[in-house]
Amino acid sequence: MGAGLLMMSMTGSGLAHAGPIKLPPPEMAGGMPLMQALKARHSAREFSSEALPQQVLSNLLWAANGVNRPDSGKRTAPSARDWREIDVLVATAEGVFRYDPPAHTLTRVVDGDLRGLTGMQDFVATAPVNLVYVADHDRVSEDADADRRARFVAADAGFIAQNVYLFCASAGLATVVRGLVDREALAKALKLGANQQVILAQSVGYPAGRH
Amino acid sequence: MGAGLLMMSMTGSGLAHAGPIKLPPPEMAGGMPLMQALKARHSAREFSSEALPQQVLSNLLWAANGVNRPDSGKRTAPSARDWREIDVLVATAEGVFRYDPPAHTLTRVVDGDLRGLTGMQDFVATAPVNLVYVADHDRVSEDADADRRARFVAADAGFIAQNVYLFCASAGLATVVRGLVDREALAKALKLGANQQVILAQSVGYPAGRH
Repeated sequence: MGAGLLMMSMTGSGLAHAGPIKLPPPEMAGGMPLMQALKARHSAREFSSEALPQQVLSNLLWAANGVNRPDSGKRTAPSARDWREIDVLVATAEGVFRYDPPAHTLTRVVDGDLRGLTGMQDFVATAPVNLVYVADHDRVSEDADADRRARFVAADAGFIAQNVYLFCASAGLATVVRGLVDREALAKALKLGANQQVILAQSVGYPAGRH
Repeated sequence: MGAGLLMMSMTGSGLAHAGPIKLPPPEMAGGMPLMQALKARHSAREFSSEALPQQVLSNLLWAANGVNRPDSGKRTAPSARDWREIDVLVATAEGVFRYDPPAHTLTRVVDGDLRGLTGMQDFVATAPVNLVYVADHDRVSEDADADRRARFVAADAGFIAQNVYLFCASAGLATVVRGLVDREALAKALKLGANQQVILAQSVGYPAGRH
């Protein structure tokens, strides 16, 4: 349990904290035909505690908000005015990591198992992966009013979350997006800056009862 | 040009305003493999004025926010607390219509070509379809604070918009989601109620230069 990321992080140097963890290249072909993925899309709240294989995690994060046009660095999900302000954080049993789309790596943000802090419901603490969508307002231009900025960053998180839903439908994973989070407590645990804001969270794992 | 919907609406009774326009059943299978649709997803701002065939419009709207589980009425996109508060409005040369997911029909909201009012850029007036995502706050429960409600409804619109992006990538359509809208002017033209709020708009059509 939980061996996947640690093994990756120790492969290079023998030190778990030595630097970004390189994910295997994402598989950018295949998957369920889109209309079938849309037919299969649903929210599920019962998860196996089984960790996600590295390749599945790689594919999941690329589907979520990976670079699909290397020339421009543009992503699988749009963002208002190309702000690219949403960071995808990955909370596992081993720690919380930030996904870096251009490098396709994970960088450790904090040690320890903070999964339970990413939501209110019991399953949150045991789902192997909880994604946390964090808006970095330093990347958001100031010329829009506050209501508009809030609307844009929430929609931008929504685009990413729907990619995750469809990836999970296609890959046989369970997922549910969650808006009820103790955002202050989580921001503190994640050591977020004053301009970083938790927007949504999303649990991902194999469905309960798979093994 | 623009014959598609009017022809549909007149099929039943010979009257364009006789009632909801029944869309052909959506094709819930097929489409591009998901990872390829994610690879192909992008924003495009140059559209052919060619109307969408009825079957394409049907598939587009079902992909956006159609019912994928008839037993519960649940949709291809999630919504906070299952509010189902986002209406998808469809602005074409012939008028503006509201998509009714359970019936898979379009109901005329207003006559006339209001496409140009759905955005600020020139292409908006000529793209054959402009979707407008409208939150109906009468369906939103009051126990969350205003900031949280605003975040949830914007994310809920984002889920739908991303379905549209992936459908368009799969179907060879151009699309771009747009946040800059004169929301007061559009709300007035659409005769929205005081509790209805324009969240986002999204243009859809064939890419320019296709014919």
